[in-house]
Amino acid sequence: MIVETRSVRFAGISLESGARLEPVEVAYQAYGELNAARSNAILITHAFSGDAHAAGLTDGKPGWWDNMIGPGKAFDTERYFIVCSNVLGGCQGTTGPASINPSTGHPYGMLFPVITIADMVELQKMLLDHLGIPQLLAVCGGSMGGMQALQWSVSYPEMGHSAIIIASTARHSAQQIAFNEVGRQAIMADPDWNGGAYYDGKPPGRGLGIARMVGHITYMSDESMREKFGRRLREKDKLGFDFSVDFEVESYLRYRGSQFVTRFDANSYLYITKAEDYFDLTRGSGSLGSIFENVRTRFLVISFTSDWLYPSYQSQEIVRVLRRRNQDVAYCDLQSNYGHDAFLVDIAEQSEIVRGFLGSTEREVAAR
Amino acid sequence: MIVETRSVRFAGISLESGARLEPVEVAYQAYGELNAARSNAILITHAFSGDAHAAGLTDGKPGWWDNMIGPGKAFDTERYFIVCSNVLGGCQGTTGPASINPSTGHPYGMLFPVITIADMVELQKMLLDHLGIPQLLAVCGGSMGGMQALQWSVSYPEMGHSAIIIASTARHSAQQIAFNEVGRQAIMADPDWNGGAYYDGKPPGRGLGIARMVGHITYMSDESMREKFGRRLREKDKLGFDFSVDFEVESYLRYRGSQFVTRFDANSYLYITKAEDYFDLTRGSGSLGSIFENVRTRFLVISFTSDWLYPSYQSQEIVRVLRRRNQDVAYCDLQSNYGHDAFLVDIAEQSEIVRGFLGSTEREVAAR
Repeated sequence: MIVETRSVRFAGISLESGARLEPVEVAYQAYGELNAARSNAILITHAFSGDAHAAGLTDGKPGWWDNMIGPGKAFDTERYFIVCSNVLGGCQGTTGPASINPSTGHPYGMLFPVITIADMVELQKMLLDHLGIPQLLAVCGGSMGGMQALQWSVSYPEMGHSAIIIASTARHSAQQIAFNEVGRQAIMADPDWNGGAYYDGKPPGRGLGIARMVGHITYMSDESMREKFGRRLREKDKLGFDFSVDFEVESYLRYRGSQFVTRFDANSYLYITKAEDYFDLTRGSGSLGSIFENVRTRFLVISFTSDWLYPSYQSQEIVRVLRRRNQDVAYCDLQSNYGHDAFLVDIAEQSEIVRGFLGSTEREVAAR
Repeated sequence: MIVETRSVRFAGISLESGARLEPVEVAYQAYGELNAARSNAILITHAFSGDAHAAGLTDGKPGWWDNMIGPGKAFDTERYFIVCSNVLGGCQGTTGPASINPSTGHPYGMLFPVITIADMVELQKMLLDHLGIPQLLAVCGGSMGGMQALQWSVSYPEMGHSAIIIASTARHSAQQIAFNEVGRQAIMADPDWNGGAYYDGKPPGRGLGIARMVGHITYMSDESMREKFGRRLREKDKLGFDFSVDFEVESYLRYRGSQFVTRFDANSYLYITKAEDYFDLTRGSGSLGSIFENVRTRFLVISFTSDWLYPSYQSQEIVRVLRRRNQDVAYCDLQSNYGHDAFLVDIAEQSEIVRGFLGSTEREVAAR
């Protein structure tokens, strides 16, 4: 399945901060066919460093969730019409800090307005309207994608029949904010960052690389790192007694850090992590229960036992609140050693659960 | 109790790497009195960023373990003679990368040899010999201090009657190496680091600050961060929609990062974390059991339930191996929310356990 990334440009978008961004462009991919009743659409929302390319091959590369989306897969493209767009503030085709600021003719840099998860959802809504999709069978995402899916259920309670929230949270915790803040400080401490105005020169690759190293540690579990690397040395049985690479895990992290720089914009790192940190479904009003007042969405919530970045208790908080309100919610805490990465890699059980949930949602919608 | 830091200079020390460091100086503090039988000495080994000032007041400031060491405390200075020295490679009086390299007349910087936990122990042994201490009633440390205490039991099995290993490990794991590597890369990415030769100018404060921010996150638990900071904003009820400080946790981390720079040398950060990462009591030989072959030390091992940096399973591995060899080991997994910091702050139960263990060690030694 070869797919291409398309994009749509809108006149502008009004943001939660009060600012307005004009124009705004959104990059997306779509898989499968929208049926005549327009009732088989599913929106996939991506995680922090994801993009619109969720499935199939684009430029010869598979999408980030290709093991979940495709003919006969959990998100069966022979059955559903699936849309995935790059988030607002991103750097893979959607308007973000690297985009040209029409009022200066230069990239926005730090003149880009601070955006929120709700703003990302707003742009997705504009895209779906443009595509003529009146309702969603499901909106589904993992990690930051799960925040968007949750926000969808609150921003547009009438539009989504169901929401699948994987390895996510209703609000970023102090520890989650703290790890993001380390990444931001690493980028902003890099002299090449230059107050965000680096697009004519060298990007802040060292800072972004360090931010990404921290990220990778938090995406894995202690156990998966032990299994994958342990104390294995790059040169067998020999400590270097210097500061070049000794351990495989050092080599891996340095490589992943340096590689990230080639595909991700450092300012997008700042803006997207900020949106995550600002995310609190209650907007500080306290009660999660009252937020779900008008929500009639069916929920599937999935967490992973070894995920310590988005620990199971955060998913369970959402589930508890929904159950207390007698809302329709299924929950699975899946056994996995992969840590937060599990939603991307450990997909056998996840596939079966998602497949079943989408089927029962279809039957329920049909029976209405 | 006002104490001063003293120091001793030796002609030199031969290191595990094969290098030799000449001369070598060690800074230490001592509390209490050595008894006539010279049988009441206890060595306290410090953690990563600790120093010789473990107890009492020096320059008006209390020592890092003052709640554990003093008259009537767990390490009762009316009963025991207690010594604590700054580790080799440190920056608080003991020879380290900031010390003058006699062959150049300038600070060593990266010409300082890579050191190991065993080298730190070696220098402590030289200090104890100098002080005329033939045996230790106990050697005790938390975190990296626990590694030194473990190494003592193996390097000098005949010298220590007991070892107290708190929140520590017999070998650094991939995740522990990974967090240290992030800190090292953050320092080395700072242009002010200048290949380690920054002593005439500005130290790499931004890099060291970021390294310390990562450290602080790993020292706390998810729960203690939630209790201490939650999502509390610096300016009540107001998100800034910019990249200044929004959350208390950001402010705290930035402050701790910037403060650390005033008291710690970035190159010492590199060398001491490297020593931690190299630490594997088996030296890669595999079996921990065989390492304890000639060890007759009594052990007390303590871990904390919320410590995810040095998780309880690492302490339990040591305990299991010792028990299997029928060696004398007591173990407590203490309930605490403070994460790795617990050994420094959550001391009520720890005090009682340590006090009891020291008492029973005294009785056992007396009965021999």
